[in-house]
Amino acid sequence: MFATSLRCLRCGRSATLEPSAYLCPHCGAGNGTTDPGILDVQYDYAEAASAFVASLSTGRHDIFRYLSLLPVSQPGDVLPAGGTPLVAAPRLADRLGLRALYLKDETRNPTRCLKDRATAIAVTIARASGYHDLYCASAGNAAISLAGFCAHQGLTCHAFVPRIASVTRLDWLRRYGARIHVSQGNYDQAFRESEEAGALEGWYSRNCAFNPYLVEGKKTVAFEIAEQLDWQVPDLVVAPVGDGCTLGATGKGFRELRTIGQTEHLPRLIGVQAEAIQPVVRRYQGRTPLETEEETLAASIAVQRPRNYLRLRAELRASHGTMLAVPDSELLEAQSLLSQESGIIPELTSAATLAGLLRLSTEQDLSGQSAVLIITGGRLDSNV
Amino acid sequence: MFATSLRCLRCGRSATLEPSAYLCPHCGAGNGTTDPGILDVQYDYAEAASAFVASLSTGRHDIFRYLSLLPVSQPGDVLPAGGTPLVAAPRLADRLGLRALYLKDETRNPTRCLKDRATAIAVTIARASGYHDLYCASAGNAAISLAGFCAHQGLTCHAFVPRIASVTRLDWLRRYGARIHVSQGNYDQAFRESEEAGALEGWYSRNCAFNPYLVEGKKTVAFEIAEQLDWQVPDLVVAPVGDGCTLGATGKGFRELRTIGQTEHLPRLIGVQAEAIQPVVRRYQGRTPLETEEETLAASIAVQRPRNYLRLRAELRASHGTMLAVPDSELLEAQSLLSQESGIIPELTSAATLAGLLRLSTEQDLSGQSAVLIITGGRLDSNV
Repeated sequence: MFATSLRCLRCGRSATLEPSAYLCPHCGAGNGTTDPGILDVQYDYAEAASAFVASLSTGRHDIFRYLSLLPVSQPGDVLPAGGTPLVAAPRLADRLGLRALYLKDETRNPTRCLKDRATAIAVTIARASGYHDLYCASAGNAAISLAGFCAHQGLTCHAFVPRIASVTRLDWLRRYGARIHVSQGNYDQAFRESEEAGALEGWYSRNCAFNPYLVEGKKTVAFEIAEQLDWQVPDLVVAPVGDGCTLGATGKGFRELRTIGQTEHLPRLIGVQAEAIQPVVRRYQGRTPLETEEETLAASIAVQRPRNYLRLRAELRASHGTMLAVPDSELLEAQSLLSQESGIIPELTSAATLAGLLRLSTEQDLSGQSAVLIITGGRLDSNV
Repeated sequence: MFATSLRCLRCGRSATLEPSAYLCPHCGAGNGTTDPGILDVQYDYAEAASAFVASLSTGRHDIFRYLSLLPVSQPGDVLPAGGTPLVAAPRLADRLGLRALYLKDETRNPTRCLKDRATAIAVTIARASGYHDLYCASAGNAAISLAGFCAHQGLTCHAFVPRIASVTRLDWLRRYGARIHVSQGNYDQAFRESEEAGALEGWYSRNCAFNPYLVEGKKTVAFEIAEQLDWQVPDLVVAPVGDGCTLGATGKGFRELRTIGQTEHLPRLIGVQAEAIQPVVRRYQGRTPLETEEETLAASIAVQRPRNYLRLRAELRASHGTMLAVPDSELLEAQSLLSQESGIIPELTSAATLAGLLRLSTEQDLSGQSAVLIITGGRLDSNV
């Protein structure tokens, strides 16, 4: 294993690689007004580089293809996450005036969602460390992902969901046999409740914002995109933003590829939130986030207090990226457009990628550029 | 291209490889009491064998990885079908006393269904032949598959569905922008209506039972299973049976691998139908099929007049296989068992695989054997 230590993204101090080293021992969880001390896995990149190249000829096509840049010593015997296709969408490219547009179809993961990449790491570490129970807070996808991987392994999944959780998502959780804890509040409250219960019971955490190893699984989406484009990185990579983990992880993945000499450039990261709940957009623009009562149909990014903001901010700055907000009406239009012109039906949250890029194209000339939309999930709720 | 001609599975006579050579020019469509003259693609296997081996190092992972045994001269620029994982289910293997049990997770295809393998061939041929409209009859999956692939290509999909079509499946069709024709009758009537309209309008057919090229796409599931097991074929391969195309195609795929020297054995094919509608089971046992008013919740195999029976019968005999029927109650139990013990949630029809194997294990000693369940689809309807 080439992972060497953990480093706090807030205070810069180090911590040791323990399975349950969730937050900085110096900074802690933050208090809602300050950001939590998120830890980041460090690697010996000089050593990892050649192992990374060697691993490309193993024939594996799940996330463990990239074992040398993962915080585990061997592949987990878990549901195969990742290895999803990058699908050209020439009709949408024409509409946007782009040279090329690709959809990274994460709906083809085991439970239909990019979050399976993180779950694969969580379950691998939990198994190796002797845990039998895992927990997470989630509007649906992360919990379903954890429930599916736990079902495959015979582990117990404790899912903490907000008061307003979709019937479809609760159905998936039940089918997998998850223990469901319905909060009386929103996602942010469910998150707090999950952390309290997890600490009390000694369960393993699958909360991606706090458990530093999970982002490492998510970053493999960047490795795959780059490899599928023959290591020519696209100009733009677009993803929906809730806690900030997915796009932050994507940025880290592309940076690491450049560090080990596998690629030369970084793509500009474009993060998209729903207009109703856009704390990351506001903070990145130097404005104060609003605690709002407004709601969005895009449940997977309805996050009032983004816990991985420091990571995402660093990656946005490194890539000269930006953040955008779009109203639900544009999400719905983009969902329809993706379905009818790319053949891939995204969940509403993932349609934020196209909605954001359409918005960006009215502000900037994108002609001649290439872009990748990360279609993070494909589970359809009854109304969206 | 190594495909050489078409051969009728009923009368044995040949036909030429035309894009719209759907049925035997001598035998025709049958009349309901006689089987239709289904055509079967013939290859120059001596020539194809070395090309097959060479193609394994191309790095492709969709169905066109196996181009030398497909009836097209080059890969279609379509949604990437196939390349799905083979997932070990050790807990279910223990329950059945098997040495090993694997799930071929076809829910990870572009539209969540094995039928995408056939659609990829249909759309590739239709595009190369200048068609803009395609049609099919379907209880849902095949039509959704066609609609998705057409959306990606900017083609028009005409979907003929039975009177009782699930809300979920109609929703997917609408999202993709398909032209939906709701029959006043069952699947068999929708099939007739689609054939009449298709012939009248000159649309390209995606009816797998009649268009001989589509089975060729489906057989790639056998190629993948064998390759994923390092060319050691399992003892048993289990699939749900409606028209008979999928299991017939699977049998052809395994036979071809043996013909070209890639494998040594054939797996026993186990076909499973719902007890309420089991014409293939009855015919294979030498009994008269019943025209029944009974219904099953497993809509994808609710077929009264299986159109590809001759193909399936030949493959069952060649593999020393068998057919089983199970009641809906066992389908529901098997669906729950798969979800909770394998982490893969099948649609009810696909749960027939486990239900059938459980039934078989009460009749035969399966200890020490290996089995593959083809989880053909994963779209969940509101009630099942």
